[in-house]
Amino acid sequence: MTSKPAIGFCGLGAMGFGMATHLVKQGYPVTAFDVHAPTLARFSDAGGTPSASLSASASDKAFYVCMVATAQQAQQALFGADGIVAGLPRGAVLYLASTVPSSYARSVAEELVRRGRGDVFFVDAPVSGGAVRAADGTLSIMAGASEAALDRGRFLLDELTAPGKLFVVAGGVGAGSNMKMVHQVLAAVHIIAVSEAFGFAARLGLHGEDVREHVIAGEAWSWMFENRSVRTLKEDYFPGASAVTIILKDTGIITSMANLVDFPVPLCSIAEQLYITGLNKDFGAQDDAGLVRLWTSEPVTSSAPLADGDKQAKLELVSHLLNGIHLCAAAEGISLAKHLGVPLAQYYELCVEAAGGSIQYKEQGAKMIDILEGKQEEEGVGLRSYREGLKAAVAEARDKKIPLHLGNGALSLMEQAGKEQSLGSLLKLYSV
Amino acid sequence: MTSKPAIGFCGLGAMGFGMATHLVKQGYPVTAFDVHAPTLARFSDAGGTPSASLSASASDKAFYVCMVATAQQAQQALFGADGIVAGLPRGAVLYLASTVPSSYARSVAEELVRRGRGDVFFVDAPVSGGAVRAADGTLSIMAGASEAALDRGRFLLDELTAPGKLFVVAGGVGAGSNMKMVHQVLAAVHIIAVSEAFGFAARLGLHGEDVREHVIAGEAWSWMFENRSVRTLKEDYFPGASAVTIILKDTGIITSMANLVDFPVPLCSIAEQLYITGLNKDFGAQDDAGLVRLWTSEPVTSSAPLADGDKQAKLELVSHLLNGIHLCAAAEGISLAKHLGVPLAQYYELCVEAAGGSIQYKEQGAKMIDILEGKQEEEGVGLRSYREGLKAAVAEARDKKIPLHLGNGALSLMEQAGKEQSLGSLLKLYSV
Repeated sequence: MTSKPAIGFCGLGAMGFGMATHLVKQGYPVTAFDVHAPTLARFSDAGGTPSASLSASASDKAFYVCMVATAQQAQQALFGADGIVAGLPRGAVLYLASTVPSSYARSVAEELVRRGRGDVFFVDAPVSGGAVRAADGTLSIMAGASEAALDRGRFLLDELTAPGKLFVVAGGVGAGSNMKMVHQVLAAVHIIAVSEAFGFAARLGLHGEDVREHVIAGEAWSWMFENRSVRTLKEDYFPGASAVTIILKDTGIITSMANLVDFPVPLCSIAEQLYITGLNKDFGAQDDAGLVRLWTSEPVTSSAPLADGDKQAKLELVSHLLNGIHLCAAAEGISLAKHLGVPLAQYYELCVEAAGGSIQYKEQGAKMIDILEGKQEEEGVGLRSYREGLKAAVAEARDKKIPLHLGNGALSLMEQAGKEQSLGSLLKLYSV
Repeated sequence: MTSKPAIGFCGLGAMGFGMATHLVKQGYPVTAFDVHAPTLARFSDAGGTPSASLSASASDKAFYVCMVATAQQAQQALFGADGIVAGLPRGAVLYLASTVPSSYARSVAEELVRRGRGDVFFVDAPVSGGAVRAADGTLSIMAGASEAALDRGRFLLDELTAPGKLFVVAGGVGAGSNMKMVHQVLAAVHIIAVSEAFGFAARLGLHGEDVREHVIAGEAWSWMFENRSVRTLKEDYFPGASAVTIILKDTGIITSMANLVDFPVPLCSIAEQLYITGLNKDFGAQDDAGLVRLWTSEPVTSSAPLADGDKQAKLELVSHLLNGIHLCAAAEGISLAKHLGVPLAQYYELCVEAAGGSIQYKEQGAKMIDILEGKQEEEGVGLRSYREGLKAAVAEARDKKIPLHLGNGALSLMEQAGKEQSLGSLLKLYSV
């Protein structure tokens, strides 16, 4: 039996704790630091070695994973006095698994060189998949790094990912973060769409269980809907598995970057305002599925059963709402990816089975990529049926005085797409 | 002294009461009906004649003004059993002053004929200007009717309007309501912009008095800002002068019509969701200036004074926010007007000094109309400075976690306008 190399780790949050303990289970000696003492004790119980300081956690570790929440935290952890880089041995591989702006990932590589630590092999390696997959070692990881860094460091990324879910993105450091960012376009819109759909449904008198069953069996399915709706139905928000602050941070990375490069992200901007509204209502530390409370104060399971015909018609409206939103989210994500030079085939492959996945992305997104790559647009259903469906949902919401922020945002885009109502005419709105 | 004709009236709300009592002061015998008994008593105190029923209020009245809140109410009042039309003498002039869809105004004319009352001269005559102007007889009125109806009925419209503020819109019945609707595009966006701006400012630590002084003296001025901010500063919302339900109803007329004709109204849609959100928070019957509470629970006058330099920089951000919103509102209103065949020169003249007015509408709106009428676009400032200003405001709001729904909506439009950043490129987003 070959002994496995020692791993340093910092940031034992929902994702980091799962990743670090997964490595422990795989037989790696893992030394970890976290600011929260009870978490460190829990990590020790799980077989890990707690560390009293960042530099100590890095001392003699040829491989180090940093999984803090934000770029600000990463900067402090990496380069602060008594920080990770101060402790790392020469030639170590340093993975930054946090979701950060790609410009920040590149600045880490530059700062290592500037501080005379160009010997460190830096891997920009944001992850996706949620806490359960983190603990199972079945995450998706989007990695950007030099070939040398990947040669040395790839084995650990393989340990953390499901088969086929390690995406090495061409372009070096920053390319992984860019890929994660464009993935998060889908996540940012789909997460709040879950709440908008459940809120709309509840206000129409639908029972949450019926809504979940209907949506996940049909074209309105998204990974986020299937995942979050479990918590929506149980009101499992305290703290839940995925804090509002996290998706707000990721959304802010998208909108800031988009403003920087002058690219329109209307749906992400709408989503961001809703996350901020949730934060201002003190929902920040709670699960993002709890944002349904921006639409309804009652549990989504409190409605009495509806007559079958009425129920079916209303469920269709919920599907129309989600289909329209998911379609436009696909257009927004794919267009931003193209604008930033993210490889579209890889983006598609990654998202379609990751947290950003939806039936609309899978089916219409593939056609959108063909269009953007200059292949003939297929004669498909186009936008028209989506638009008519959205109009029906929006009209019902107007009548019942239910706000549909994303639904109206998506409808505005389809109306802007004009008479042609093709996927191409939707994509043109993002062709700047 | 010639005796003045008797006038029938129904709907003594904030606007209707002012209009009816103004006519009383001008020496007209006015007989009015309202569902609210105390209002009728107040009308009697003001010299009017209260009526016990709609048909009685119409009996023997050669001129009748209907000023109820909605098309639904109008339909009931006009055509219900014992309603206005049942009481009206042959050849009467019937004015519908409520803001209703133009399709509804046309349906009234058709229903009169269908019911054998084609003898009634129907005038589609929505008004603008607020309760104070209603009581002063200095409203703006947008009238659409047959020439015969206008010949007979124009004198009463003159009584209710300021000099030069009676706009007879070509196109007959429905044309007045269309004009009102496109005016309300500006109103719908500007009203909620007042609250977004004050909320943003308060969260930046600015004092409301400083904000008002700064905005009304500069390019960020709008009629709505000057008008509503008086109430914002006093928290005069209960009930205030202009209920949320009224502007929500008007906004719904715009968005419904826009969806019907497949025209994009992204800013009006954002505004509508905010009005609905306010309604859901039980602000519906309160003044629309009170929607600032969607942004801040503290009075906008509660901040301590800021140092001068800091204050000035933050006030500039508030101006940037309003300038960007007002510019896009002008593009949305003018584009919808063009799409519906509303005469643009008249639309401009009407709005520029009415409740929809803003400096941006006045200055950039004039250029937009030139562009849409095929005149060469002037080399002006274009969009670029607006976009940069909005980006600064949006970045600050993102940092401080302040939702800017309209601000981000306007910024998305400018980003969609692409590299050209001309007024023409903004208008193209509405060229469907």
